[in-house]
Amino acid sequence: MSSLTRLLDPGSIAVVGASASPGKAGYQALRTLAGFHGTLLPINPNAAEILGFKANPSLTSARNTTGIAPDLAILVIPAAACLDAVRDAAQAGCGGVLIVSGGFAETGGEGARLQADIAHLCRDAGIRLLGPNTSGFIRPRTACAASFAPGIEQFRDGGVAVVAQSGGVNLTLAFLVHRLGVGLSLAVGLGNAADVDVADVLEYLAADSRTKAIALHLEGVREGRRVYETLRRVTPLKPVVAVTPGRADIGVFARSHTGNLIGAYDRKIAALRQAGVVVVETTDEAADAVSALAHTRIAPASDPGLGVLTGQAGPGLLMVDRLRAGGVRVPEFNAATLKRIESLLPPMTFMRNPVDTGRPSPTFPAVLRAIAEDAGVDAIAVFALDEPAAVDPAAVLSAAKRDTSKPMLFGTVGLHESIAPTVEHLWTAGIPAYTSPERLASAARALVEDARLAARVARGRVEEAPPRFPAALELPLHEATAKALVSAYGIPTPRGVVCRTEADAVSAFAALRKPVVAKILTTEIVHKTEVGGVRLGIDTEADLRSALAALDAIPLTGERAYLVEEMAPRGMELIAGAVRDPSFGPVVMVGLGGTAAEALQDTAVRLGPLGEAEALEMLDELHARRLLEGWRGAPPVDRNAIARTLVALGRILLDHPSLGDIELNPLVADADGVIALDALAAAAQDVAP
Amino acid sequence: MSSLTRLLDPGSIAVVGASASPGKAGYQALRTLAGFHGTLLPINPNAAEILGFKANPSLTSARNTTGIAPDLAILVIPAAACLDAVRDAAQAGCGGVLIVSGGFAETGGEGARLQADIAHLCRDAGIRLLGPNTSGFIRPRTACAASFAPGIEQFRDGGVAVVAQSGGVNLTLAFLVHRLGVGLSLAVGLGNAADVDVADVLEYLAADSRTKAIALHLEGVREGRRVYETLRRVTPLKPVVAVTPGRADIGVFARSHTGNLIGAYDRKIAALRQAGVVVVETTDEAADAVSALAHTRIAPASDPGLGVLTGQAGPGLLMVDRLRAGGVRVPEFNAATLKRIESLLPPMTFMRNPVDTGRPSPTFPAVLRAIAEDAGVDAIAVFALDEPAAVDPAAVLSAAKRDTSKPMLFGTVGLHESIAPTVEHLWTAGIPAYTSPERLASAARALVEDARLAARVARGRVEEAPPRFPAALELPLHEATAKALVSAYGIPTPRGVVCRTEADAVSAFAALRKPVVAKILTTEIVHKTEVGGVRLGIDTEADLRSALAALDAIPLTGERAYLVEEMAPRGMELIAGAVRDPSFGPVVMVGLGGTAAEALQDTAVRLGPLGEAEALEMLDELHARRLLEGWRGAPPVDRNAIARTLVALGRILLDHPSLGDIELNPLVADADGVIALDALAAAAQDVAP
Repeated sequence: MSSLTRLLDPGSIAVVGASASPGKAGYQALRTLAGFHGTLLPINPNAAEILGFKANPSLTSARNTTGIAPDLAILVIPAAACLDAVRDAAQAGCGGVLIVSGGFAETGGEGARLQADIAHLCRDAGIRLLGPNTSGFIRPRTACAASFAPGIEQFRDGGVAVVAQSGGVNLTLAFLVHRLGVGLSLAVGLGNAADVDVADVLEYLAADSRTKAIALHLEGVREGRRVYETLRRVTPLKPVVAVTPGRADIGVFARSHTGNLIGAYDRKIAALRQAGVVVVETTDEAADAVSALAHTRIAPASDPGLGVLTGQAGPGLLMVDRLRAGGVRVPEFNAATLKRIESLLPPMTFMRNPVDTGRPSPTFPAVLRAIAEDAGVDAIAVFALDEPAAVDPAAVLSAAKRDTSKPMLFGTVGLHESIAPTVEHLWTAGIPAYTSPERLASAARALVEDARLAARVARGRVEEAPPRFPAALELPLHEATAKALVSAYGIPTPRGVVCRTEADAVSAFAALRKPVVAKILTTEIVHKTEVGGVRLGIDTEADLRSALAALDAIPLTGERAYLVEEMAPRGMELIAGAVRDPSFGPVVMVGLGGTAAEALQDTAVRLGPLGEAEALEMLDELHARRLLEGWRGAPPVDRNAIARTLVALGRILLDHPSLGDIELNPLVADADGVIALDALAAAAQDVAP
Repeated sequence: MSSLTRLLDPGSIAVVGASASPGKAGYQALRTLAGFHGTLLPINPNAAEILGFKANPSLTSARNTTGIAPDLAILVIPAAACLDAVRDAAQAGCGGVLIVSGGFAETGGEGARLQADIAHLCRDAGIRLLGPNTSGFIRPRTACAASFAPGIEQFRDGGVAVVAQSGGVNLTLAFLVHRLGVGLSLAVGLGNAADVDVADVLEYLAADSRTKAIALHLEGVREGRRVYETLRRVTPLKPVVAVTPGRADIGVFARSHTGNLIGAYDRKIAALRQAGVVVVETTDEAADAVSALAHTRIAPASDPGLGVLTGQAGPGLLMVDRLRAGGVRVPEFNAATLKRIESLLPPMTFMRNPVDTGRPSPTFPAVLRAIAEDAGVDAIAVFALDEPAAVDPAAVLSAAKRDTSKPMLFGTVGLHESIAPTVEHLWTAGIPAYTSPERLASAARALVEDARLAARVARGRVEEAPPRFPAALELPLHEATAKALVSAYGIPTPRGVVCRTEADAVSAFAALRKPVVAKILTTEIVHKTEVGGVRLGIDTEADLRSALAALDAIPLTGERAYLVEEMAPRGMELIAGAVRDPSFGPVVMVGLGGTAAEALQDTAVRLGPLGEAEALEMLDELHARRLLEGWRGAPPVDRNAIARTLVALGRILLDHPSLGDIELNPLVADADGVIALDALAAAAQDVAP
């Protein structure tokens, strides 16, 4: 049994602060719980009975009177009274406490201390704590509406779970799922998450047999790495859909909300997708997608094909445009399918996928079957305006579903009274149904994305390997050591020699292929080029000596040395690096080098460690990916060599915990491979969060 | 009276092909029209009465019997029978014909000829034709449901008009608007648009006093320029929201080099926005936005500020993130407003915009009033979860609306039964209301976008000016003439001399600032660099002679000449051009030069002619705009000089109808201005569409 079971699936609930005055939160809390299938115990020192339930003055007295140690105590009392109430809960043997009030860590200072004290007390007493500063949770199966909003007691039991950092977003998502006619297994708002956090609830839901799919709302994440690793374990079992703010700069408001930083948005998105989570843009999309995924899922596939059947060309065009723009493949059918469809429809309609039937006719079911049986089709989206006289989608799709295991989705538009029964029937039959063409398209895209990410997670498993360089690094590293480090992990660097004296440099010059480059070797200067610390194109010994003289003119306080290296071939300049994110741990990035590319911020990121397939997909994400593929007649660069470099960078950060940042700028790539012309390494404590 | 009035606002309607057999289209057509406020005349040679209406065997006999020349004849008969029916309609004195059937131009050959014949006949008879191949139109005010879908007869009269190229999308948009509880003035599906087209209906709606806002669905546009010019006249009077597919076709490029960078979808979107149209992504968003705009509009402003009030921080965060990511300004309130709000709310909530009230309290109305009175706020978005015990949004917002002229929008989430009356009340009070935080945010964004585009349209008026170069161009132009042309329009080009002989070149060299560049001057070669036709960095006469010798080695069939020019200063390389689009006419584009930028397809387009403000906004649209603003310590480039160049390019195409394409590649920009290093001009007939 999970340590969360008594908290989130209680058999008995005490409401501390229950009140008989309508309008008070303690009244509302008891009222929404009135239908609870277990034991309900109002706690109020000044009332004998509330809403027909016998009241007790305290949790311990309730335990003594009833012999029941309440599984869950809901505290609907001011922040200042909570510490005492939690002590009482510990004494009464409660398994979980839910604190609704605000006034804790989100207000700083005093509130943060109070929250820490309560969390500490709970930990010692073996009590799991939800909140503070949350609207609570809802488990419809037991009518456990441990939350405030009116109406939640009407939610149906079902396969969708919601985990939200914000109580308000938890309710929003739950209501939107309910509005589709879909049931919920559990909907939890975490609030300040002093104890129970996102990862805890995800673990709990992964093991909960009633939960089929999870909607996740994530603002800032303190322990991003833990959430990421939990999600990687969860998504192969159950699909997860996430909605997460942070695209724009909303930092100040966000901090005031739950006290968390939003963090770098692109890292958060990369982590979620890398863990197999379907990221959507709105709560509406999240509700639509998670509801679909609770009913049906495409088996993991690197690029599933969608069959589209539409009764009207215009809406079909809008759908297919949205699908294709969203990266969903709508493949041409094979010849046999096409022939079957041609025999079923008048000649002037479009049939190659999408299939436009014109006004649906009696052949509609046969066309649908032909599409479902095409080997290139992994799921089918059907749209038809409401026209009961022409086609009964509820009957046609339910029948078709009996003959195929491929997911099917439906969309329609019409008068609410007319389409509502159809939509409800289809959801019950396991066919997600939506009330606009684009909502259907978005849900279909979520299904495809889930299958694609699942395949990526499966491919993305990383083999363990021993470190290839002594773990203890003396940081910061100078360029030559940083290069030795990356080189030990298989990243090519120019042939070069560290020289203490001019004589050393001259003999190194003799041994190297000309021209060479001479660099100042020191940890005192980060941007060597800017101080003239890099002398390029040295062809003669005389050139070398004057270059060294120029380097000697750069003031240094410490030891002085040179790095003499062979000049590398020309190629495409990239920037590749890895940084230790305070929340997500090692993050690998790649982008195009050069001023223009930097201004365009065309970069891709992933959490390390990562496999080569994952690294190759980073390259596919670059807007400038065409440049890698041989733009304007240039030969394509060696993408695999870049991918191996990214894999190595992730591993380096993993193997060397003291390292905070390593950057190869530029990493030059051509058709034959890559070479790191510079390497910069910084200690973890020197990297700004 | 518009020539469309009899067609789209008929007093009498004849249904040709009306049928008494349920299931037949001719039955459905009559049935949905049964409540029509005018005269309904079924036409059927084999029936005396249908659905209680007296039938006539033909239109002319109906006219003779009733004395009524039907304003509109709806033909619900096969394509092959339509020509005769239209002849009959002409004889009967009909004002409009609606042809529902398919089987015309969309099937090619025979069908196209039939359609042309019918269109011709209508034109001669002064009959306006809607369709063929359309589901028709709906005008709820007169219960004129001249379309097929069941349920449309329940649409309410109101201020939203729909114009859709597709009949199916017309119905989709109309149903989605209806679902919001909002009424429609007219909803038209154009189908093949053999006569009545998008521009016609837009003109009609602009003059229709009942129409407050227009939803537009646009697929391909044959006469893009006419649609653009019509929309520019319409949007200052009435807001227009468009949904338009084609994003997925972005990969299909025109063959000419400039067209290569633009793509047709970009042109369509640019034209719509330049005409003041709010472009959205889905029919759901279109319905939400047009409904809002039919009730309230922000006065034209270059960057309106939105005040946001939320009862729950989490959904508020999602909203503000979406708004800011969508470019909407959510400005900090001024000090006085902040002070007022601070006096109304507990200290721990966020108040600087958004205002997070926590659970709404009795001060909610006063907070709303404070926000509405802030001078930096042009519109207000209010979100609150449904909590009737805490706040009654219908009462609060309706009351607030009486005290402010600033648009207000509302969003909520809760049980349908509980929120539906609130939402309905607010729409009736002129306050758009939505059922999710992000739908509220999107509608607010549409309001802001409308105001911003309206300001842009107002600023974008272009002064007339006489041509600055002889209109008759002998095309194609060689580089020197092309440069003379752009130079006449004020675009700087390098100082240079056209030389027929080596001797000419030598004396030109003497007169020019060194170094110079020598180019082959011919219209036979488009890409001169690729054949060695451009020799750079010529410092000495000897260099010049060997450069000329190299140019002489390039085989030409025609006349041979050189262009000797001063080398230009270094700067940022751009590509600027103008091309004559077959549908939209002159289109101006600008993008970053260089391989990387081209691969990134970072370009902005506008229809020409355009003003300097509009041209400056093109630069703001470039992803790489930061490069222009002085990236990494470089001085900012002269944006105004680039803008003037773009204005000039638009004017050049306008003044020279024989010109199809003009391209400056590269256009070099620095802090002091711009200079076109190359200019390429092609004839209209040589530019691929």
